[in-house]
Amino acid sequence: MAAAVTSMDDIGEVLATMQGPDVAAAAAARAREPQLTKPPGSLGRLEELAVWLATWQGRHPPSAERVRAVVFAGNHGVASRGVSAFPASVTAQMVANFAAGGAAINHLCRTFGVDLVVHPLDLARPTGDIVTGPAMDEPGFVAAFAAGWDAALERPADLVCLGEMGIGNTTAAAALCHGLFAGSAADWCGPGTGLDGPAVAHKAAVVADAVARHADAAGPLDLLRRLGGREFAAIAGAVLAARHARIPVILDGFVCTAAAAPLAAARPDALDHCVVGHASTEPGHRRLLARLGKRPLLDLDMRLGEASGAVLAAGLVKAAAACHAGMATFAEAGVTSG
Amino acid sequence: MAAAVTSMDDIGEVLATMQGPDVAAAAAARAREPQLTKPPGSLGRLEELAVWLATWQGRHPPSAERVRAVVFAGNHGVASRGVSAFPASVTAQMVANFAAGGAAINHLCRTFGVDLVVHPLDLARPTGDIVTGPAMDEPGFVAAFAAGWDAALERPADLVCLGEMGIGNTTAAAALCHGLFAGSAADWCGPGTGLDGPAVAHKAAVVADAVARHADAAGPLDLLRRLGGREFAAIAGAVLAARHARIPVILDGFVCTAAAAPLAAARPDALDHCVVGHASTEPGHRRLLARLGKRPLLDLDMRLGEASGAVLAAGLVKAAAACHAGMATFAEAGVTSG
Repeated sequence: MAAAVTSMDDIGEVLATMQGPDVAAAAAARAREPQLTKPPGSLGRLEELAVWLATWQGRHPPSAERVRAVVFAGNHGVASRGVSAFPASVTAQMVANFAAGGAAINHLCRTFGVDLVVHPLDLARPTGDIVTGPAMDEPGFVAAFAAGWDAALERPADLVCLGEMGIGNTTAAAALCHGLFAGSAADWCGPGTGLDGPAVAHKAAVVADAVARHADAAGPLDLLRRLGGREFAAIAGAVLAARHARIPVILDGFVCTAAAAPLAAARPDALDHCVVGHASTEPGHRRLLARLGKRPLLDLDMRLGEASGAVLAAGLVKAAAACHAGMATFAEAGVTSG
Repeated sequence: MAAAVTSMDDIGEVLATMQGPDVAAAAAARAREPQLTKPPGSLGRLEELAVWLATWQGRHPPSAERVRAVVFAGNHGVASRGVSAFPASVTAQMVANFAAGGAAINHLCRTFGVDLVVHPLDLARPTGDIVTGPAMDEPGFVAAFAAGWDAALERPADLVCLGEMGIGNTTAAAALCHGLFAGSAADWCGPGTGLDGPAVAHKAAVVADAVARHADAAGPLDLLRRLGGREFAAIAGAVLAARHARIPVILDGFVCTAAAAPLAAARPDALDHCVVGHASTEPGHRRLLARLGKRPLLDLDMRLGEASGAVLAAGLVKAAAACHAGMATFAEAGVTSG
């Protein structure tokens, strides 16, 4: 199924009909690894990544030549409540910086041979203030989800890295996680782009109010619509589109993982085709990864967003695919196996 | 000083006369980071890597375009004591595999644009059995050290990744660490390429015997000569040559870090121009990193050697250098700073 998504029912259907693992490709990858010229298991998580790629690409050998980074940007009504160290105007300024090639993600993509595409989502019209109402109405949510779905599929790819930019969006992410997984509001709130302690406490109060306001939500996807933002809906759409098109996904940090989390809350296997590129220092991220059962690939004290951690991790996935497909076997190389 | 190293006295002199940090380049790198279009500190360890590169290259901006991996291979008399899951003949077989392009390191280097050079060190003549005598006599040690020194300098480079191959060399590494840092022999012994529990216990007994035999060593460099191997001496030589030539170094796993450790034992700042690429699952590595005060860049359950973890980490250093040099400042991009 790769038709256009035009309604809430369509979203429910793509969630219900997603592809499962390709067990034959997985078995072929698992069978090849012990034949390669290295002590068994000595490439550790690179070996697991090769099997994961084969499983979700549905082919063996897998490849990671054509890697795309897709970054969604959104603006948030809640940003007017003083929850960020930067003004909301920075979202559009950073989108211009992406276009001009001046941001971190531009240089990370260049380093690893990753194509970058940025989708600003109606930045001039922030989403609703989640303390007083939903971020998006249903048509608005479906449109943002569909933008993500289409963005993931607009060009062929072996692997997609997802990321986001949006002043105020760690507040939306914290609210979404608090709504999905309970705990206290403070559990999910951190400094974001650089708040001090009292400002983080204020942010937690805003999150608590927002979650209380939406206690009557109809489930994880409805929470995503009410508490997320357009970039969140787009990431969820891109994750599901990639699953349907057999494109493995690397998620980035706290906001990106939070955007995908409602899918896992709705269906526990929904993120099996996703790995998490890195552990952010934003404290909610580790808590969220524990809930999702995901072990990040990198832990470099980063907290930038923009798909930066996902693209760094794409280098590791490229390396894993190259070793798996290209290494000689013991028999080919005439090396004595242990 | 980049003259040839021809005696133990020369080695002492290069250790005594090594370059210090370039404080001006470090200051320039530290001053640039907060101007770049990202929340301050949000690139975490990538920012630290950019400052480290500038500090030890002695220039700003630093670069990581020309990266070389230098892998030294050696054979060990102690391998005949049943301390490895593979026969000693595999060292030369893997060197042939490196030359043919079939090993993991070949594909890792290709992925990250790293040049690979492999130096087999007199493989047909294993070093002495460390249980009964020294691995190398003084001329043999100086020759291996000089081979490493020359290898590090044979072509210009912005960054060097060091690695090794040698059946039996986790036993030599364990002995060297036990000799340098005490603890028990078992503390430093692990499965290497794949020993089971009883075989690891045997390995620890061999290590204890070897260290007891060399209790009269004259200091860290003498321990390196007695308990290491030619690839260990070469790595130590390459580390010091790189320091003198202002080339930052990425160390690999347990054996590579152990080979460099005597330098730090002799002079605490000797490895300040080195980062450690990854934490190996070989249990002695984390213990050794704690002794050296080094935090590895990656933690991917790997234990292959061959510079594999160092070259994966080189991708991160390349990314750090690219972001530091290439990103727009807030002023250049017209982005409001926080």
